Amino acid sequence: ADVKKIAVIAGDGIGPEVVAEAEKILKRTEEVFGFSFETEHALFGGIAIDKKGTPLPEETLAVCQSADAVLLGAVGGPQWDNNPKELRPETGLLGIRKELGLFSNLRPAVVFDCLKDASTLKPEVLEGTNLIVVRELTGGIYFGEKFRRESAQGEEAVDTCAYNVTEVERIVRQSFEIAQKRRKKLASVDKANVLETSRLWREVVNRVAVDYPDVELEHVLVDNCAMQLLRRPSSFDVIVTENMFGDILSDEAAMLTGSIGMLSSASLGEGSFGLYEPVHGSAPDIAGEGLANPIATILSVALMFRLTFGYEKAADAIEKAVAEVLDAGHRTADIAVDKSQAISTAQMGNLIAAAI
Amino acid sequence: ADVKKIAVIAGDGIGPEVVAEAEKILKRTEEVFGFSFETEHALFGGIAIDKKGTPLPEETLAVCQSADAVLLGAVGGPQWDNNPKELRPETGLLGIRKELGLFSNLRPAVVFDCLKDASTLKPEVLEGTNLIVVRELTGGIYFGEKFRRESAQGEEAVDTCAYNVTEVERIVRQSFEIAQKRRKKLASVDKANVLETSRLWREVVNRVAVDYPDVELEHVLVDNCAMQLLRRPSSFDVIVTENMFGDILSDEAAMLTGSIGMLSSASLGEGSFGLYEPVHGSAPDIAGEGLANPIATILSVALMFRLTFGYEKAADAIEKAVAEVLDAGHRTADIAVDKSQAISTAQMGNLIAAAI
Ligand SMILES: CC(C)[C@H](C(=O)O)[C@@H](O)C(=O)O
Ligand SMILES: CC(C)[C@H](C(=O)O)[C@@H](O)C(=O)O
Repeated sequence: ADVKKIAVIAGDGIGPEVVAEAEKILKRTEEVFGFSFETEHALFGGIAIDKKGTPLPEETLAVCQSADAVLLGAVGGPQWDNNPKELRPETGLLGIRKELGLFSNLRPAVVFDCLKDASTLKPEVLEGTNLIVVRELTGGIYFGEKFRRESAQGEEAVDTCAYNVTEVERIVRQSFEIAQKRRKKLASVDKANVLETSRLWREVVNRVAVDYPDVELEHVLVDNCAMQLLRRPSSFDVIVTENMFGDILSDEAAMLTGSIGMLSSASLGEGSFGLYEPVHGSAPDIAGEGLANPIATILSVALMFRLTFGYEKAADAIEKAVAEVLDAGHRTADIAVDKSQAISTAQMGNLIAAAI
Repeated sequence: ADVKKIAVIAGDGIGPEVVAEAEKILKRTEEVFGFSFETEHALFGGIAIDKKGTPLPEETLAVCQSADAVLLGAVGGPQWDNNPKELRPETGLLGIRKELGLFSNLRPAVVFDCLKDASTLKPEVLEGTNLIVVRELTGGIYFGEKFRRESAQGEEAVDTCAYNVTEVERIVRQSFEIAQKRRKKLASVDKANVLETSRLWREVVNRVAVDYPDVELEHVLVDNCAMQLLRRPSSFDVIVTENMFGDILSDEAAMLTGSIGMLSSASLGEGSFGLYEPVHGSAPDIAGEGLANPIATILSVALMFRLTFGYEKAADAIEKAVAEVLDAGHRTADIAVDKSQAISTAQMGNLIAAAI
């Protein structure tokens, strides 16, 4: 059989718990669909700092590089927050994105029926919201030169934001292609009235758009987008933007769905390789108690099946299983109305696996 | 009497209409409170491009510089959107901020009773929301070096974001002082886990905080702030942040109140000088029809009275007059439930003036 290699990075906080449930799903699909997965665990983030003295050890990078895909739980926690930069979990996160060439972060923001009321938005505004934010992930101000210098006004800090045509074009093309398979609408977000990088961005978008005449394109200024996401979330289909704007807008979009604890994400590079992870964080406050909701991580496996392996049917089966278990009324504590009826992380994983 | 000089910039679109009503309020307060204002009109924005070939003519700058305060309507419109950079209204906007040293933009986001239902947020989430975003306005990526260059990956664009200690300290101190006069809570927003400018920002905030022990300080990452504004808007009091983040977050905050058409803003420099303007734009689609709502501009006059002139009582009187007219059920088209009952821009101005 065609063996797929998956690097598994449990990470910190609730990471190990939710990843364990996602692994049950991998096993289950081996049985049901005859897949064959070879998983290799690797240290990353806070736990790697503690055990190896660096958030992204060489071995971990090697494990990822020799894999077809990476499944990531979550990283970070208060005990590493005051570390020097090289010893912080997020430095590992930026490093792994760059080293693996993961230039595109896909963040679907969808509303789960059972969580409709969890949103702070009115239900009639939220109705029909199903968008995806495509965030450039290896360029811009995140990776530009950074330094301090003396100035007449005291110490000065500098960050540099740079984008070249190639970087913009690949993510923009990918976004048009994603839009073609969805509702055929693309919103490109920039600040072209102020930033040179945004003007380049917009030029490239307009040039590339010619190749996708079936996709309706709009340019939206980032400040206006922050407003329109609130005013008319359901009118967006695909939103593409640069790294820093994407960081802010993807979180805003996720939060307005009310479903942030259940959202999955994919970070893609050239070819089919990808890193998959839940949108939620490491939630150290509830770690180790079996309270975490594994659904976002399980749905990240479905994304992996679809985008990296082309296992469409199995991806559908996972998503259907999740829907079924939720429809049957099962809830982990975070999404339970009556907390006393909540099931554990492992129980939720078992139910979903069984439903496949 | 103490004559106050006010530079009046009507600008484009509905700018002239709303400013005309604000001037009625100035006149009315001269009668009622014995003030004495000397107003001088100046061209700015699109109309200045058309008449003078530049969005910010020298004379306009001179008029502002010799005034005690500036009242601005709105600038911009589609006819200038494709102009080269030097001939765009927003270039004038950035220029006037820099030339007048307006380093601080204050954007109160409050909920008007009569507009509670206009928000897309649930009323129970919005309840009690009354925050102010203090945005740094003359630094950061807006004003850093910008250029294009050739790279191995094709043309490359670069923007530079810089902040020095002096720039950060003055806005942070101002924010602490504003917080002291309000609910004594300050949220400083940055991206210190990624940006060097944010790390400098946070260092300065922590150092300055020692002088304001009565203010409760929290550091919030910008992506998290975009979420928390949606999740718990009423928990914020004063939010201070750098230019680009402030652009995005102040618009998000304004939109979530549902009252965006009624919000005023102040841009301040050293001393008491300030520029006051409504948050809404030039709305070219309804310009010249008497449909515009002058309340945001009238409330900008109240802000001017309070922050530049120290006319507290008159500021209160303006705000009270606005509330009274709204309570009596008068509405311009934008906020009317029954549009056929809507009153005109001038009628609204007259009613508020009369109520003072
Ligand atoms: C932890 C941080 C560096 C990271 C980012 O800003 O990219 C996070 O916010 C994210 O969105 O994955
Ligand atoms: C027009 C634009 C340059 C301006 C800005 O980004 O500062 C506007 O969005 C604002 O917030 O006043």
